[in-house]
Amino acid sequence: MSEKDFAGASRRGFLRSAGVLAAVAGLAPASPAEAHAKEPPPPKQTGAIEPFYGARQGGIVTSAQRHTYFAAFDLDAPRRDDVITMLRGWTDAAAALTRGEPPPLSGDASYGGAEPGADALGLGPSRLTLTFGFGAGLFTKDGKDRYGLASARPEELIDMPGFPGDKLVETRTGGDLSVQACADDPQVAFHAIRRLMQLAWGVARIRWAQTGFLPNCSAGETPRNLMGFKDGTNNLTAKDEDGLARFVFAGNDAPPWMHGGSYVVARRIVIALEHWDRMRVNFQEQTIGRQRVSGAPLGKTNEFDTADFAATDKDGNPVMPMNSHVRLASANNNDGARILRRPYSYNDGVAYTAERWPPWRQGMEYDAGLFFICYQRDPREGFVKIFSKLARFDMMNQFTTHTGGGVFACPGGIAPGEFVGQRLFSA
Amino acid sequence: MSEKDFAGASRRGFLRSAGVLAAVAGLAPASPAEAHAKEPPPPKQTGAIEPFYGARQGGIVTSAQRHTYFAAFDLDAPRRDDVITMLRGWTDAAAALTRGEPPPLSGDASYGGAEPGADALGLGPSRLTLTFGFGAGLFTKDGKDRYGLASARPEELIDMPGFPGDKLVETRTGGDLSVQACADDPQVAFHAIRRLMQLAWGVARIRWAQTGFLPNCSAGETPRNLMGFKDGTNNLTAKDEDGLARFVFAGNDAPPWMHGGSYVVARRIVIALEHWDRMRVNFQEQTIGRQRVSGAPLGKTNEFDTADFAATDKDGNPVMPMNSHVRLASANNNDGARILRRPYSYNDGVAYTAERWPPWRQGMEYDAGLFFICYQRDPREGFVKIFSKLARFDMMNQFTTHTGGGVFACPGGIAPGEFVGQRLFSA
Repeated sequence: MSEKDFAGASRRGFLRSAGVLAAVAGLAPASPAEAHAKEPPPPKQTGAIEPFYGARQGGIVTSAQRHTYFAAFDLDAPRRDDVITMLRGWTDAAAALTRGEPPPLSGDASYGGAEPGADALGLGPSRLTLTFGFGAGLFTKDGKDRYGLASARPEELIDMPGFPGDKLVETRTGGDLSVQACADDPQVAFHAIRRLMQLAWGVARIRWAQTGFLPNCSAGETPRNLMGFKDGTNNLTAKDEDGLARFVFAGNDAPPWMHGGSYVVARRIVIALEHWDRMRVNFQEQTIGRQRVSGAPLGKTNEFDTADFAATDKDGNPVMPMNSHVRLASANNNDGARILRRPYSYNDGVAYTAERWPPWRQGMEYDAGLFFICYQRDPREGFVKIFSKLARFDMMNQFTTHTGGGVFACPGGIAPGEFVGQRLFSA
Repeated sequence: MSEKDFAGASRRGFLRSAGVLAAVAGLAPASPAEAHAKEPPPPKQTGAIEPFYGARQGGIVTSAQRHTYFAAFDLDAPRRDDVITMLRGWTDAAAALTRGEPPPLSGDASYGGAEPGADALGLGPSRLTLTFGFGAGLFTKDGKDRYGLASARPEELIDMPGFPGDKLVETRTGGDLSVQACADDPQVAFHAIRRLMQLAWGVARIRWAQTGFLPNCSAGETPRNLMGFKDGTNNLTAKDEDGLARFVFAGNDAPPWMHGGSYVVARRIVIALEHWDRMRVNFQEQTIGRQRVSGAPLGKTNEFDTADFAATDKDGNPVMPMNSHVRLASANNNDGARILRRPYSYNDGVAYTAERWPPWRQGMEYDAGLFFICYQRDPREGFVKIFSKLARFDMMNQFTTHTGGGVFACPGGIAPGEFVGQRLFSA
């Protein structure tokens, strides 16, 4: 009995059980057709729509929405066709969801024909984007070429190296597929993942998931992260087509399925906010390399002023400390390396923590921080290059701990009629 | 060496260490005065303000804000005066925070004089409310009357009884104090708790915390929960002063510190959304007792129609199933008992779960659901009475598991110059 057979049998058993429960409760279970007749009308609120089709996937250079739900999936399906069928279903659903339309029913009874939920009814598209990624496990898993894709794995889809200070939790790390839902409403983002999960029944399971948010700052303002500093001042922008082509998106030297694609690196970074909140502002600013209120580089006046890494104070010390975050992360100090940062803050309440700072308390502390997400055309020349230096020298490391994440190849965008990854599977 | 001494010694050691780190990094740590000179100007965006002072605390009948951060604290302080000093600091901070002003520095060096963070700078008040509650542990803990308040514990502040199906996790349950921050921005709500946490240093620690959110539905619409149903249709409203006086707020028979106060019951309810998402709409509707799209009671047309519990279908079965949630929870079926519901959805990603339904899978499933919060003048006549029936008979129980929560006495509101709980401590 294969994994797939087992899933199918379980599903049938499950539906039988649901029928029994309904009968016990004195209910006549509706046929799928009857139930579908009650499906919701199109939402009244439309809101803004982000395009789903195009040369690039949405959610990369898209102006950051307020909320994210990032899900990494493990594939259970033994057969290539199961994966293709799921990706077709995901593509159709994603196109409808981003338009704010009720997602189509799955015509394939093997997924149980589960009906879309009503949790996002009336909320409109809310600028939803769904960004799909392929992890190493899609190409080979435990040394096995499950789907005949082993030879197609790009060398840019690296196994992430370990860094000093990493405390990656296995159940928060990796995955065969990724889907990042971003929307201006948290319920819309989650609804989209729930619909994809319905369509993935028996084929893929969520391995880890992370919610994230941004503050409701004024349009054009750089949002502050939970450390209280403006985050993203020097980022690549959607208008910088040269920068995007050079640093973010794969070019025509990549395999066709990666044309217009990018590699996403996600890192769940717990920030010791109790510790940070007890630091003096001056120390915080030296750690970051920027002024807290204005966001200006140290020694400068305005947020967007260029940092002067050569400037020294009256004692001859650098104005931008050698181990400040901004200095170490800057392109100037990384052979010009740049990435497209698209981070969210996250807040998972509190968790049992053994402090890494005096007096080394153990107890409940904030499980909150930065859900760091970045895009690049080659992680070896992007995140890995930059973070290799940061992981060793960044003064911020005494406050930050990486506890999970992954790296995924996000294929290029698609045209109507195509499914996500079609050019990979048909290569 | 008392707990308090230890905290003080640790704090000094901690600050020394921070100085050492700064020195290693080539920094001259700023004096607190220097650092404070850089404190942020008042925020530019003002937004809407909810009043902090008044006969009742904010955050109870206040129209629900989009986000919440609920924190339960354990008290470490051995002395009554430490608690009073903290509550004074919390009160001053809360008054400023709800106005969107930078919270005042603590003048008391015993708290280390930690400066307010800048994470909410520019976000405005965002309708922030802070609602304070006192748990049983404030009155007696482990049989000890730590603060001379044992005789003041009201009988309404019950030890919550166990219910069938409870899976309460100790580290998500109870607490000596509670603070619920609600705001239209998640970063504003969290910022407020972080500021209170700074002021509580050495006196109280967070025991558990939970974030929550509501969808961005149109004004006047009843928000849908993660089950996809409208949630709160029949709730008590701020306009129903008779209902509030009868069911929600303590009257003049209560001790003076509880005049205008209420008892909050919080329950963290995981919903088996994978399971729910595979149920037919008809079955979902029978479970809830309402139509999914319109929100109307079964057999009725509009959301606010009165449910007809006597109606039967052509086979003589009740149109509102006997074990539907709405039927079991209704005042008609609970001797008229009512509560003020103020729930949020929560989404903590996924967690390892052993399913309670066929085929009893074990693995990562959504750790999301309802962060149920309700207010009442007597939990024995409110939550306990209603949930005793629900816990045994509600068809929804196959999808819901209570994993944490608490019950707290929320004292009446205060006037400027008073501190939260002053009338309790001066009684």
